[in-house]
Amino acid sequence: MPPRPMVIGDPAAMREAVVTARAAGRRVGFVPTMGNLHAGHASLVARAAGDCADVAVSIFVNPTQFGPGEDFDRYPRTLAADLAVLEPLGVRWVFAPEPTAVYPPGHATRVVVEGPADGFEGAIRPGHFAGVATVVCRLLLAVPADVAYFGTKDWQQTLVIRRMVCDLGLPVEIVVCPTVREADGLAMSSRNAYLAAAERPRAAALFAGLERAEAAWRSGAALPAVEAALREPLEAAGLAIDYATVVDAESLGPVRAAAPAVALVAARLGTTRLIDNFPLPPRGSG
Amino acid sequence: MPPRPMVIGDPAAMREAVVTARAAGRRVGFVPTMGNLHAGHASLVARAAGDCADVAVSIFVNPTQFGPGEDFDRYPRTLAADLAVLEPLGVRWVFAPEPTAVYPPGHATRVVVEGPADGFEGAIRPGHFAGVATVVCRLLLAVPADVAYFGTKDWQQTLVIRRMVCDLGLPVEIVVCPTVREADGLAMSSRNAYLAAAERPRAAALFAGLERAEAAWRSGAALPAVEAALREPLEAAGLAIDYATVVDAESLGPVRAAAPAVALVAARLGTTRLIDNFPLPPRGSG
Repeated sequence: MPPRPMVIGDPAAMREAVVTARAAGRRVGFVPTMGNLHAGHASLVARAAGDCADVAVSIFVNPTQFGPGEDFDRYPRTLAADLAVLEPLGVRWVFAPEPTAVYPPGHATRVVVEGPADGFEGAIRPGHFAGVATVVCRLLLAVPADVAYFGTKDWQQTLVIRRMVCDLGLPVEIVVCPTVREADGLAMSSRNAYLAAAERPRAAALFAGLERAEAAWRSGAALPAVEAALREPLEAAGLAIDYATVVDAESLGPVRAAAPAVALVAARLGTTRLIDNFPLPPRGSG
Repeated sequence: MPPRPMVIGDPAAMREAVVTARAAGRRVGFVPTMGNLHAGHASLVARAAGDCADVAVSIFVNPTQFGPGEDFDRYPRTLAADLAVLEPLGVRWVFAPEPTAVYPPGHATRVVVEGPADGFEGAIRPGHFAGVATVVCRLLLAVPADVAYFGTKDWQQTLVIRRMVCDLGLPVEIVVCPTVREADGLAMSSRNAYLAAAERPRAAALFAGLERAEAAWRSGAALPAVEAALREPLEAAGLAIDYATVVDAESLGPVRAAAPAVALVAARLGTTRLIDNFPLPPRGSG
């Protein structure tokens, strides 16, 4: 077994540990999380451990990325279980700051991203991506790693973070790793735990829609037919669709010929909101 | 004579130079400027050179901190003269990036500070402090110095920058240095060059008002009398006052007993806008 991870709450101490390791020539990887770790997080950590000499994982349920009426209060906090998940994965540091260490008294600074943050999650969850960008900027300064790992499941988030890192010149490489799925295709998410037993099978409709959309896309179907294929299983399963569309993979604007695209879906099932996506390869025309 | 400063345009090269120097144990100081250097800038650079083994000075006229109709186009660009000012001061690097190096194509990220950025310059120049905070954040990431130097003349700006550095956890010490003045008390500023010959003597009214306000403050006068003393020379000289007030030095809210205060003034003289301030010591009551 590797040594147990060191749990650090103080951002300055965290930063010092990473700076010292890098000064000694060790490549450092960072996986930011909100805890309640599942196999998706574990895959990011395993990738980081494969690439890097030292891995830091942050666990912080960030209040500023939740809107009024969202699930901040009920979001699962499971630190002991999370540490047990991380222990065999060779994590050196777990950064688990108190909220006041991330947002000091009188905090008044936000990092606001437009462009990729407009529309979709940005439109449905006002302020969400400003909360994400602010906390990721702050975390990347506390954990100044060589490389940080994010999951494909939050596609738009990865675009927002890449944009911010480029625009501010944060000295970190961003690696985006594949979505990890349950046996029926449901993307791993802490929010899956909110699903009632009777709802759980219906949640696979997101994956089913994405698979159908991908097949239609690869067959050369016109965009309306691709999007109809995406929506059909969601409607059949009775999910309330927030959006289900195919857009340019980088701009999230209209599909462009010979450019990568992405099928994006967000839908509600009871009180649970689920998102998922499939990256789609370039093709001759939308 | 010290060696001539190395002029660097590429943020990654700039960063690498600073990181390498610090890894060799050299303390690095940074003075961000918009160029058109005067004795105020020189005093910051001299302080940095006294404190640090290596000094970086940035010269970048930041478009995002100018509002529509402000003086971005006419702001003086004098790089050759600026290099001549810096050469005898022992500056190692001059960071003079192109706008596209600071704001890459598709740029969509702003650092927005509330709190100390509200009111005064923030109210009169909407978006100004977001432009300042964004560019200073970006510059501090390109020039990751031990310490950065700012002038007291832009009092509110120093509060905004301190707030941002604290909130994001930027790993830099902020040092604020005294305002440098002309013989008649006018605070050094690149914008003084806009003053017509007939206007120039009248510009000393800001300093005269601040001196009177300070005397009234120290004598124990009530706040309305202190502010009247501040305004009187400005009105006598026919300046258009944007604000002339005494506030808490940190919050810019109402003066608090036994807490540092600041006299803040902004006034227009023809097409030139001037700002100045005097920090005031704590006293028993406002």
